[in-house]
Amino acid sequence: MYSFTCDYTEGAHPEILKRLNESNFQQEPGYGEDSFCASAKARIREAIGCPEADIFFLVGGTQTNYTIIDGMLQGYQGVLAAQTGHIAVHEAGAIEFSGHKVLTLPQHSGKIDAGELKAWLEAFYADETYPHMVQPGMVYISFPSEYGTIYSRTELEAIGEICKHYGLPLFIDGARLGYGLASPAADVCLKDIARLCDVFYIGGTKVGALCGEAVVFPRGNAPAHFFTTVKQHGALLAKGRLLGLQFDTLFTDDLYGKISAHAIEMALRVKEVFASHGIGFHIDSPTNQQFPILSAEQMEALKGKVAFEVWEPLPDGRYVTRFATSWATKPEAVEYLAGIL
Amino acid sequence: MYSFTCDYTEGAHPEILKRLNESNFQQEPGYGEDSFCASAKARIREAIGCPEADIFFLVGGTQTNYTIIDGMLQGYQGVLAAQTGHIAVHEAGAIEFSGHKVLTLPQHSGKIDAGELKAWLEAFYADETYPHMVQPGMVYISFPSEYGTIYSRTELEAIGEICKHYGLPLFIDGARLGYGLASPAADVCLKDIARLCDVFYIGGTKVGALCGEAVVFPRGNAPAHFFTTVKQHGALLAKGRLLGLQFDTLFTDDLYGKISAHAIEMALRVKEVFASHGIGFHIDSPTNQQFPILSAEQMEALKGKVAFEVWEPLPDGRYVTRFATSWATKPEAVEYLAGIL
Amino acid sequence: MYSFTCDYTEGAHPEILKRLNESNFQQEPGYGEDSFCASAKARIREAIGCPEADIFFLVGGTQTNYTIIDGMLQGYQGVLAAQTGHIAVHEAGAIEFSGHKVLTLPQHSGKIDAGELKAWLEAFYADETYPHMVQPGMVYISFPSEYGTIYSRTELEAIGEICKHYGLPLFIDGARLGYGLASPAADVCLKDIARLCDVFYIGGTKVGALCGEAVVFPRGNAPAHFFTTVKQHGALLAKGRLLGLQFDTLFTDDLYGKISAHAIEMALRVKEVFASHGIGFHIDSPTNQQFPILSAEQMEALKGKVAFEVWEPLPDGRYVTRFATSWATKPEAVEYLAGIL
Amino acid sequence: MYSFTCDYTEGAHPEILKRLNESNFQQEPGYGEDSFCASAKARIREAIGCPEADIFFLVGGTQTNYTIIDGMLQGYQGVLAAQTGHIAVHEAGAIEFSGHKVLTLPQHSGKIDAGELKAWLEAFYADETYPHMVQPGMVYISFPSEYGTIYSRTELEAIGEICKHYGLPLFIDGARLGYGLASPAADVCLKDIARLCDVFYIGGTKVGALCGEAVVFPRGNAPAHFFTTVKQHGALLAKGRLLGLQFDTLFTDDLYGKISAHAIEMALRVKEVFASHGIGFHIDSPTNQQFPILSAEQMEALKGKVAFEVWEPLPDGRYVTRFATSWATKPEAVEYLAGIL
Repeated sequence: MYSFTCDYTEGAHPEILKRLNESNFQQEPGYGEDSFCASAKARIREAIGCPEADIFFLVGGTQTNYTIIDGMLQGYQGVLAAQTGHIAVHEAGAIEFSGHKVLTLPQHSGKIDAGELKAWLEAFYADETYPHMVQPGMVYISFPSEYGTIYSRTELEAIGEICKHYGLPLFIDGARLGYGLASPAADVCLKDIARLCDVFYIGGTKVGALCGEAVVFPRGNAPAHFFTTVKQHGALLAKGRLLGLQFDTLFTDDLYGKISAHAIEMALRVKEVFASHGIGFHIDSPTNQQFPILSAEQMEALKGKVAFEVWEPLPDGRYVTRFATSWATKPEAVEYLAGIL
Repeated sequence: MYSFTCDYTEGAHPEILKRLNESNFQQEPGYGEDSFCASAKARIREAIGCPEADIFFLVGGTQTNYTIIDGMLQGYQGVLAAQTGHIAVHEAGAIEFSGHKVLTLPQHSGKIDAGELKAWLEAFYADETYPHMVQPGMVYISFPSEYGTIYSRTELEAIGEICKHYGLPLFIDGARLGYGLASPAADVCLKDIARLCDVFYIGGTKVGALCGEAVVFPRGNAPAHFFTTVKQHGALLAKGRLLGLQFDTLFTDDLYGKISAHAIEMALRVKEVFASHGIGFHIDSPTNQQFPILSAEQMEALKGKVAFEVWEPLPDGRYVTRFATSWATKPEAVEYLAGIL
Repeated sequence: MYSFTCDYTEGAHPEILKRLNESNFQQEPGYGEDSFCASAKARIREAIGCPEADIFFLVGGTQTNYTIIDGMLQGYQGVLAAQTGHIAVHEAGAIEFSGHKVLTLPQHSGKIDAGELKAWLEAFYADETYPHMVQPGMVYISFPSEYGTIYSRTELEAIGEICKHYGLPLFIDGARLGYGLASPAADVCLKDIARLCDVFYIGGTKVGALCGEAVVFPRGNAPAHFFTTVKQHGALLAKGRLLGLQFDTLFTDDLYGKISAHAIEMALRVKEVFASHGIGFHIDSPTNQQFPILSAEQMEALKGKVAFEVWEPLPDGRYVTRFATSWATKPEAVEYLAGIL
Repeated sequence: MYSFTCDYTEGAHPEILKRLNESNFQQEPGYGEDSFCASAKARIREAIGCPEADIFFLVGGTQTNYTIIDGMLQGYQGVLAAQTGHIAVHEAGAIEFSGHKVLTLPQHSGKIDAGELKAWLEAFYADETYPHMVQPGMVYISFPSEYGTIYSRTELEAIGEICKHYGLPLFIDGARLGYGLASPAADVCLKDIARLCDVFYIGGTKVGALCGEAVVFPRGNAPAHFFTTVKQHGALLAKGRLLGLQFDTLFTDDLYGKISAHAIEMALRVKEVFASHGIGFHIDSPTNQQFPILSAEQMEALKGKVAFEVWEPLPDGRYVTRFATSWATKPEAVEYLAGIL
């Protein structure tokens, strides 16, 4: 049975395993002081066009989000995010655990709207009781969003402008960054991302790595003592080499871009397959997550043949489902799915 | 140059890499629901003689310590530990970040003393202002300690008895558990550890794994919703398979015990080498960390030939140094060191 | 100029000041161990019909809310509240500061609906990703609500039943409890409140005291070491006598009930005055806060004569305003307002 | 029976009660926006010689300490304090609750030593593992200390110089500030205190007020949004007038200085009385807390006649006791004590 349940069902890109094997007995210092991390940072700085970027390698998404957010916010501040943002829903309250409120904005297929952000901030400061409320301290968006959608350059610029006006750093959660950038619908590249925000991370876990997220402060703007903050949040890997080597590999010969493009190719083929059978979508996603709406009968028919996620029931008895592809999705898996349908 | 700076300078035991390769494209669910985690848990339950144990795989030491401690303590409680305990010194305040005070006890070569623990508790409750103070909620010890020393069965039982009397769970930090148990000085085995405490972890990062610590609640006594607590603390690995596979490998054919024994063999040879040259030790460690006291000249002589850690300067101008061995230490490295000396 | 801006514009009921004067040089122990606290607790236990109640005197509302909530929740839990609940909006993130998420429910004139609470909980547990989310640990309601509305006995029972079913304690924020109970619309009394929830507080600050809130665990169900939790949250008053004496006075000869009734009488007269001039209300409040909708001209006309709060602008250019009465509102103030209108 | 157990056994200075009575029905805005707070701030600014000082009125000591410390520290920082400092011992872990470690220094009759502070900081930064440890972010001292001792101007300057060198703000806990400054042993005045530190508070609770501590940032150096931080920490009093009026009264005609001087006069008389009977002292305190060492027989003799606190037992069977005087201590109480002895 082929599984489309998520984008982390396999291990790592074979090139990573190969290099892990080759370098296994090379002795390296811990905590990110190794040669792989150094090399990976150099490659990422080049790829994003930011020679002065501060880069840190962390292990997983929730950890990365709450370390960045807590590290950048003052105690009296909260983070603005879409009500469907990962930090608002699926991180078990990690942001609140670190003392901060997630201030939610309406979502549109997983995205926030610059106009609504502006309206929120205007209303906040117009309310004379605002000193009794959590102060906005940062804006969080995900690219792609939790629903697979992506922001256009114009949208990112509009959000960025408002952030600048209100002195709020903009944080882009790039857990699936490669899949967003590889989409034909994307009109931004990695350098644009680095230019348009104050901090972002390049997701490894979902894009070819065993684990690992590369946190980037593009203009050397990491908060003071961020290394200590990472340690304090339980996010410092002793054998940092594991993370360095993976990102070094992913950013050699643009492996990251290539495997992301493969995932998108597979996803668009999945989309095409469903569409060709008249099956509609909950959201028109241009990235590696597709949300076909299936009837109970269709779900039953797929059962035991391909695995996928049931996202939410609809009032009409049908279900929103999620089919995710990844760097590891095999063309034959997609064709098998096509065959069943 | 050979490095003895710490016990995490290499990657992973080759058997782990081999299995990572073999299983790489096997599709598995995330978050510890994979088949490797299931198998690893079964093997560990057997090895510790606790069929009903609750087991969780986390990524690194600081993360594991603060997740366990915060997960088991009530908000008004602190954790008792040696003043040299890792949680008291080298975790960047992770315990305090999660809201708890580390209540420190005197240390004796890194160990706490049952009598002093008892005296502390008696004095605490004898002080009528105690409701104005942090309430003791747990006892933390490390096995081996940060100075390589280990508790005897008698010592563990004495501490455990006091814990029981005062209703305090006993937590054993086993970041280097294998090296403690493999020491000829140890009179406890893994089953004893499981029997004598309320929670402990089996360190993987320092004992053959790329990363990973296996948290064990021996009597099925994990706190309610501990999975959510792990996630909230940024300690849940998406590709749990990476941890499961490693522990599954380490607990197949007692690989964990065997590679630990190798490290101890190497360490005792290092000890012997130093002793044979009349070099004394800061602490008489029976495990994989050795603390020879070197003069400035001796340090100079080794410089550029073997790497090691300078632990602390002594008033007489000499230095406490640390030479660590591990599962990966090559006999030739030790003989090379012997040759220089 | 008379002010109706809020219900804490004056000092304390004269009887309280009289007793403060009389007892000023009486030497008493600190931290709530004084004779006034003891007497106040006895009177409150009698008034609520709960001889075994645990009672603590804290200083202010936000402090009380976050001490109770953090004291009762486990670390992985959040508190369910109306999206307009004080803890969700106007406490500067105190709940999040203590590590917990406020899980918001829709509001209806400031109240939550039992059916919607049930639906929320059903949906939560039906979502198989729920272990990745903040676990609901408590339900918070305010009586009266932030909009002056009150729950009926039937509504409270319905909410309580759901809480019981899901094992969630019910917490009633009674910052204005007296004003709620004194309303002719109320069909519950103080004993009902104590019976229908797991913890509540009797607001003093807004009902005749200089400061002070009496926290009640009706069935002796205070969390273990709650005194220490209070201290840890900066909520323990050294001269607890100040709080004890005030509540002792308020609960002598039902002063609390009498002065609450006065405030309601004044509020209903205010309501009548506005209504008689054809002025509508944003919310039909039966308690001491009234929310007349005024035009810009009407606001201008009142300016400089009576003070009140502008609550929110309406799309049609009018404004929701708030006129609050209290134990201290003078009948002549209301008649002066009537005269202007 | 007269009580010398602590310095908060009575209510408030009669002048405060008088003004509370007089102003009771004056309508004032809440949250410190009232006219009393404004007047009190003006008077304090004048008394400390800092026209630009930021001043906030909080309710009690623990609350004030943890709000200031958490408000000034970054998340990765801890606060340096004597191991006997109130924040290290008797605040139920409030500092840790807000996420920060108390880094302890040796104490000398309750005081820290500038040389030891310097040595601690030098050792910290000399340890190359320091990024793995809590970063020092502030120095806390109490004046007078918990043992009644006071720092000389020279000592304060020495500590301040080190703080400046390391970029650490110096915080003076002045819960008993008046009693320290009124001591004949003091060679600093209120203006010196303001000049020599970065933040301090003027204790009201123990010096004539019902409650209240005036937090002073002498050079207008309050952290951004400190009002919100105060609210978030549950430390914002709704009826701020209660605090404003009290400090306004205490800083009118130097009432604060006068009543402090009275307490010291009483304390020195107590000291003299004990000394004249050959009774020694645990600490040579020049302020309102005296620590005579009594035998079991002497304690027995006083029992039931005067109340005092037993501080700690000595190995020789005698006890360190504490006799505290205050603004409210009656000369006849001291003479009664003298009579018994």
